[in-house]
Amino acid sequence: MSLDSAQLETFAAVVREGSFDAAARVLNVTPSAVSQRIKALEQAAGQVLVRRSKPCQATEAGEPLLRLAGQIALLEREALATARGGRGGDWTRAAIVVNADSLATWFMPALAAVPAELRLLFDIYTDDQEHTAELLRSGAVMAAVTAQNVPVQGCRSQRLGAMRYRAVAAPAMFGTWFADGVTPAALADAPMVVLNRKDRLQHRFLRTLTRRDLDPPIHYVPSVTAFDEAIRLGLGWGMVPDLVADADLAEDRYRELVPGGLLNVPLYWQHWRLESAVLTALTTAVQAAAATALR
Amino acid sequence: MSLDSAQLETFAAVVREGSFDAAARVLNVTPSAVSQRIKALEQAAGQVLVRRSKPCQATEAGEPLLRLAGQIALLEREALATARGGRGGDWTRAAIVVNADSLATWFMPALAAVPAELRLLFDIYTDDQEHTAELLRSGAVMAAVTAQNVPVQGCRSQRLGAMRYRAVAAPAMFGTWFADGVTPAALADAPMVVLNRKDRLQHRFLRTLTRRDLDPPIHYVPSVTAFDEAIRLGLGWGMVPDLVADADLAEDRYRELVPGGLLNVPLYWQHWRLESAVLTALTTAVQAAAATALR
Repeated sequence: MSLDSAQLETFAAVVREGSFDAAARVLNVTPSAVSQRIKALEQAAGQVLVRRSKPCQATEAGEPLLRLAGQIALLEREALATARGGRGGDWTRAAIVVNADSLATWFMPALAAVPAELRLLFDIYTDDQEHTAELLRSGAVMAAVTAQNVPVQGCRSQRLGAMRYRAVAAPAMFGTWFADGVTPAALADAPMVVLNRKDRLQHRFLRTLTRRDLDPPIHYVPSVTAFDEAIRLGLGWGMVPDLVADADLAEDRYRELVPGGLLNVPLYWQHWRLESAVLTALTTAVQAAAATALR
Repeated sequence: MSLDSAQLETFAAVVREGSFDAAARVLNVTPSAVSQRIKALEQAAGQVLVRRSKPCQATEAGEPLLRLAGQIALLEREALATARGGRGGDWTRAAIVVNADSLATWFMPALAAVPAELRLLFDIYTDDQEHTAELLRSGAVMAAVTAQNVPVQGCRSQRLGAMRYRAVAAPAMFGTWFADGVTPAALADAPMVVLNRKDRLQHRFLRTLTRRDLDPPIHYVPSVTAFDEAIRLGLGWGMVPDLVADADLAEDRYRELVPGGLLNVPLYWQHWRLESAVLTALTTAVQAAAATALR
């Protein structure tokens, strides 16, 4: 059996853009053409591939085909670019998932260092570092910055170094809640700032420090900029990467809960096992930036 | 019919925390107790209220009860705090949805200005300003910063002012793509940076400027910090709030595509129609901060 590459491309566009209409728009075809191609692909595969939800998603059976669609698109573009002697040609989409703290600190300069003649369009997704591998597994992205070391099936995993976090609070917040020391009792009462419900860093720090599962009051602030700001404004304490915290500590906007105490989060670069100029260039740029920013 | 308030609280916790297990953890009960309470509430309502997905969500029938649960919790806390003469007492959860650019700029200082004796725990959600009203409608949050003026049912809407956006690019990127002017042809070819697939600001700017629906290449960068960085690094042009852009323009890190050209996005504060000290204090703080930051 051979699958139709226009149908695969349409399937990938539906999942990526979230609806049949949006896929039709980016592919410059009618919505009914999109619908026919998806039906034909589902018949060829003998499986329902698209969950017709808002947004549309790949079913479990659809995930291997989603990855296949991405890999074929990448290989096709690269073969055409080589055939043309590297002159001009279309943009190539590079879908990557990155944990929030890497994205806000060292990752964009890495992407900007990829040679412009590759004409990459970056399609970045973000999630907690303990969850970024899921998008790689689902076939939606070609590479991930992730805390997961074990390679996802069909992927290669390389260590990038560790992101180092410090537990910090504003001096006034520290004075209010930790005047009698950073004790388990004070840590159980003091409010902490957490990015979202997947972010377990603050809880890990508490367990490391106190060997207990404490349940303090939590402010959820799902934006790295606003998270840092919430701590500076004294709403609570939280774990901040040393890349960001060190400047604030030097200027007394932050105070460390445990001076010199660090929580290390090793990060890995996982990507499709595929002979590809794009993946090679991305890997080189990401490793070089990580070597400077991470430990 | 009268609904059980412990069951309503459990229902809200399941939707908020995303699973029966997580709800059990925050409520300090067993998962089977959570399961029993949800079943009892669904029997009382005669409707399925929780979609057992990952994460768990309120069904359409569940949404009015989700809002009711939040309103009862808020009123209970406030009545108890008054009964105790305002001394001590528990934290009160304040769930609010805020558009990404507000959250990264003027919103956290507004929250920090809310009197500390109200003991609010902020549970912030973020989405595109055209979509923030959906979470308010679903009952998941008590207030929203939104581009939608028409009040959501049961809510009050107040104008906060306009967020003003400038179309900017790094000087080198400008030189490469707009050397012969910011023409429709150049705008159709030049890559632009977009936050995510809900973000239509760049497309709106293009339509206002050229009166055409252009389809340029897009980098998706779903983090406000990384979005600004992508533009500074020359990956593409994009719409940046003047609160952020003006400093970069003054130091020649950004260049305007249309000098002095602004896109205004009026923002509104919508919140439950409810006599509540918490909502009154939040509204006062948000309006004061918006009066300074917005136009």
